[in-house]
Amino acid sequence: MKETTTLFQHGTLALLIPGLFAGTLSAGDLVKHGDTGIGTLDALNGEVIVIDGQVYQAAEDGHVYSVPDTAMMPFASVHFSDINQPKISLEGLNQDQFSNWLIEDRHLKNAFAAITLHGQFSMVHVRVAPKQTVPFPPLTAATAHQPEFTREQVSGTVVGYFAPDLYAGATVAGCHLHFISDDRQFAGHLLDFQLIGGEGGVQLLPNLLLHLPTDNATFMNADIELNGLNDAINQAEH
Amino acid sequence: MKETTTLFQHGTLALLIPGLFAGTLSAGDLVKHGDTGIGTLDALNGEVIVIDGQVYQAAEDGHVYSVPDTAMMPFASVHFSDINQPKISLEGLNQDQFSNWLIEDRHLKNAFAAITLHGQFSMVHVRVAPKQTVPFPPLTAATAHQPEFTREQVSGTVVGYFAPDLYAGATVAGCHLHFISDDRQFAGHLLDFQLIGGEGGVQLLPNLLLHLPTDNATFMNADIELNGLNDAINQAEH
Repeated sequence: MKETTTLFQHGTLALLIPGLFAGTLSAGDLVKHGDTGIGTLDALNGEVIVIDGQVYQAAEDGHVYSVPDTAMMPFASVHFSDINQPKISLEGLNQDQFSNWLIEDRHLKNAFAAITLHGQFSMVHVRVAPKQTVPFPPLTAATAHQPEFTREQVSGTVVGYFAPDLYAGATVAGCHLHFISDDRQFAGHLLDFQLIGGEGGVQLLPNLLLHLPTDNATFMNADIELNGLNDAINQAEH
Repeated sequence: MKETTTLFQHGTLALLIPGLFAGTLSAGDLVKHGDTGIGTLDALNGEVIVIDGQVYQAAEDGHVYSVPDTAMMPFASVHFSDINQPKISLEGLNQDQFSNWLIEDRHLKNAFAAITLHGQFSMVHVRVAPKQTVPFPPLTAATAHQPEFTREQVSGTVVGYFAPDLYAGATVAGCHLHFISDDRQFAGHLLDFQLIGGEGGVQLLPNLLLHLPTDNATFMNADIELNGLNDAINQAEH
């Protein structure tokens, strides 16, 4: 019986801002804490989607790759999906309408929650962070120009999290959603979608287990500029 | 073997700001997650110190009471003390100098850490939050007038945590320290001290396990005003 009430997060979004993109947790260790989730890889090399315990990379070339257990990640969030979670039928929503439904109808506000939406989409629009080279630039520079991809008539799954505004900086406040197609050929960080019809799930997560890379000297000594942090996050992540 | 790398926190400081002082976790459940820590009780009824697995209340009458397992708490932090943690001899420091030592000499910056200091003090100055009645006022009103107590020539233990600035609001950023005397007769939230000599310990905590009261409707529906949050926290907690 998996523990389905905890959001495990490695690293913080704030540490990506000054360019701490070096991986500090392996994909193999990550999936010990969850079978579903999102993240990024060492050197900001694309977008990660964890689904059914498998780790996938949406790469800047527009392709999707299986991520080996040894791949390192600077920032990732996972949880164990509760198979008994009720599913809610939804249709005709775009991404903003889906986010509003989560907040208005599902009352997401002060607690963390895992979000899934599986269905048929007439359009899915994603972007993928491009791989960076050492010395790493700040996140806003690294993400100023990101490849974007659009797919029409695709079935797949939206995976991500809702976090309260209080945790902006530690993580992405509001909804942070990735997508992967059922054929595992198309994936990325969601910019927009148009749902034909599907089933949504909201799994409330009363516990946040935040794991910081305290054995990494760069992390321990980094100067995190808190002023303007949320502006930088919103610029890079939305 | 206890797990000595995790800071368990129930509730958030931000939720105390609008007056959510109702207890949502029992002291008995709290000590399942740690033998050392700090917190407050239902109705903001004093200051809590957890030491050697025992839970104590510093009450507004200046006395210290043992807290029953059934007592409820809206906000508390605990960890399991690592008995193998090196102790460092210190002498002649006041509270500001001790905090500076933690930050400058121990390099506390981006990670959570548990702090202890056991020794002989020529002076210890504490304050104790006074018990509130329903309907609870905001934290700044509740803590505008707090009883303060000073003891001279006392041996005891400083217990508390360091948290990075990034987590201000979720918890108290910087050092948040309570005190309890060896005879368990004097305790409270530390305002200042003058150490004669003692031994300090800094236990790095790579993991934060944040547990939110998601089964509490008041919590789930509360409006948390983030603007001015840190000003209100600094006014109430320092």
